[in-house]
Amino acid sequence: MSELRYDPTTREWVIIAPERAKRPQQAPKPRRADRLPDWDGSCPFCPGNESQTPPEVFRLPLSDKASAWEVRVIPNRFAALMPDGSITRREDGRFFRKMDGIGAHEVIVESPSHNITMALMSYEQVQKILIAYQERYNALKKNRQFKFISIFKNHGQASGTSLVHPHSQLVATPIAAPYYHRRLNVAVDYYAVSGSCLYCELLAEELKKGERIVAQTREFVVFHPYASRTPWETWIIPKRHYASFGLFPNEHLTELARVLKDTLLCLYRGLDNPAFNYMVNTTITEDEENPYYHWHIRIVPRLNLIAGFEMGSGIYISTALPEETTRLMKQVAQSFPEDECLSFKKKA
Amino acid sequence: MSELRYDPTTREWVIIAPERAKRPQQAPKPRRADRLPDWDGSCPFCPGNESQTPPEVFRLPLSDKASAWEVRVIPNRFAALMPDGSITRREDGRFFRKMDGIGAHEVIVESPSHNITMALMSYEQVQKILIAYQERYNALKKNRQFKFISIFKNHGQASGTSLVHPHSQLVATPIAAPYYHRRLNVAVDYYAVSGSCLYCELLAEELKKGERIVAQTREFVVFHPYASRTPWETWIIPKRHYASFGLFPNEHLTELARVLKDTLLCLYRGLDNPAFNYMVNTTITEDEENPYYHWHIRIVPRLNLIAGFEMGSGIYISTALPEETTRLMKQVAQSFPEDECLSFKKKA
Repeated sequence: MSELRYDPTTREWVIIAPERAKRPQQAPKPRRADRLPDWDGSCPFCPGNESQTPPEVFRLPLSDKASAWEVRVIPNRFAALMPDGSITRREDGRFFRKMDGIGAHEVIVESPSHNITMALMSYEQVQKILIAYQERYNALKKNRQFKFISIFKNHGQASGTSLVHPHSQLVATPIAAPYYHRRLNVAVDYYAVSGSCLYCELLAEELKKGERIVAQTREFVVFHPYASRTPWETWIIPKRHYASFGLFPNEHLTELARVLKDTLLCLYRGLDNPAFNYMVNTTITEDEENPYYHWHIRIVPRLNLIAGFEMGSGIYISTALPEETTRLMKQVAQSFPEDECLSFKKKA
Repeated sequence: MSELRYDPTTREWVIIAPERAKRPQQAPKPRRADRLPDWDGSCPFCPGNESQTPPEVFRLPLSDKASAWEVRVIPNRFAALMPDGSITRREDGRFFRKMDGIGAHEVIVESPSHNITMALMSYEQVQKILIAYQERYNALKKNRQFKFISIFKNHGQASGTSLVHPHSQLVATPIAAPYYHRRLNVAVDYYAVSGSCLYCELLAEELKKGERIVAQTREFVVFHPYASRTPWETWIIPKRHYASFGLFPNEHLTELARVLKDTLLCLYRGLDNPAFNYMVNTTITEDEENPYYHWHIRIVPRLNLIAGFEMGSGIYISTALPEETTRLMKQVAQSFPEDECLSFKKKA
């Protein structure tokens, strides 16, 4: 029998129906990165083609070569939002209001190499990407018109990406995101009753139970949430309370890079290079030190397409119990050679 | 420049960024229905293969042939929810609660013909499908454990469907859907202030403005919402106030069938048989005559994949202004031969 589970961070129910895993599958796999060339002359993100993109806003240069780079950030050529305009709302008839599409939309080119994927990068390279995320986050938040900054990655065709060269994106919006609002409301209510951060307490409970913990390191926990919306949904969450990714101490980015890379490597091996999205869930730029919210990374493999039921109801159907996918992911981690998945192997 | 628009029914902003329409496209097209055979021996929904499905719960027989049918409703073989169990919530540790996966999950087989699509069906056939929807809705709501009934259709691979034979689905859940809750909260607040149904008033305003009205008939309005989440998002909404599709007078299903078929035909021609979902947005089964909610059909062409930004933020990016897609859809309707798209041509 399937079951419904309540998500304490959103107050929404999900359906967990393992029987539906037997349904014919259809989500296309990403092209295997290793079948692609290391450099593609027609790719705007490949070295040598820098002039095909808008002027860059940030780069981490290769230390011994001033003209080369390891990570590069550029405005999205098809930006959903642009920095010019006003956040003043305008009435547009009795029920309608609008404002300028003000904001920023940037692309973080994660590597000069066209055919690499984050799961297979070095720890050092992943750390550089995280440094770029935080640099751009903190640079953009200085513009007080930008209220919320989304950092996310789309990998593989089923994830909604249109370019294969490894990249992430950042969007600064003049409004707080609705999903953030919803989680914040729940967390504020919890704080009003308990005086504690919901996520800190939830994490303590998950660690006590243990059955959904994939790994823990000194500063982070990797786990599959109780009310997973999709099989192998994985969260990486700092043990200590920080509402904002922007204010997260950058000395911990070394450890975060190891945990993120190892988590993605487990998904890469366990699900054979699945399409996925990850999202850095963080607080609004104007309230970065609040006691309610707790930033984290949510990784969602795209094994099924979102269909009319989810779109109409907002109820998600997962086809696997998170306790089961946790067990499988730990098996994958244990099957690695000694020199891989190091961060999962150290005892906390 | 792009703009942000506020959706008065959800209180959420969407981004309308026509520039992004120039981005390389990737959503796969559905296989053209006319390239499929009329009958497929391996399809469980084709006539003659009735024994491959669970026992049917409803049929509209072909009048002159007792063994044949025109519409057939069966339990989903890979049901997300089943009728057995209890709606009692069970504590599952300090933060977690769950309940049995109780409910119903049915498939409405829309035609004996394997290769037809609703846009190309006769008005009479579409009416039979709507009759089946309402019959099953009203039969299932008698089970007081079923609080909410979703009726929806997935068409084309990008919509999340796994079978091509024309079908819709119905899911009865023991909880109200979160998206319903959100819209209800907004509508209740509006009612508290104004004493009126938000949707009735919104419709009056849309009709006064006119620029997003695709068509109107005696009982229905077809329009593209101000804060469309996707290009060509189309709503069909009854002019008179009914909270529940289940209590909508069945004498109006004849007209609804004509409007629905003609709307889908405009999308079929205008977008070359796009993948789409439609959802019947209706109230909960225990409060079918409330003055707040107003049932309607929401049709969403799947022209882009949902990616990390939407998943992380809940902010949708549409690449077309609804005023522009309204104009295009009216052009499509006007280009039809005299004997097609009849419901759009009659003056209200």
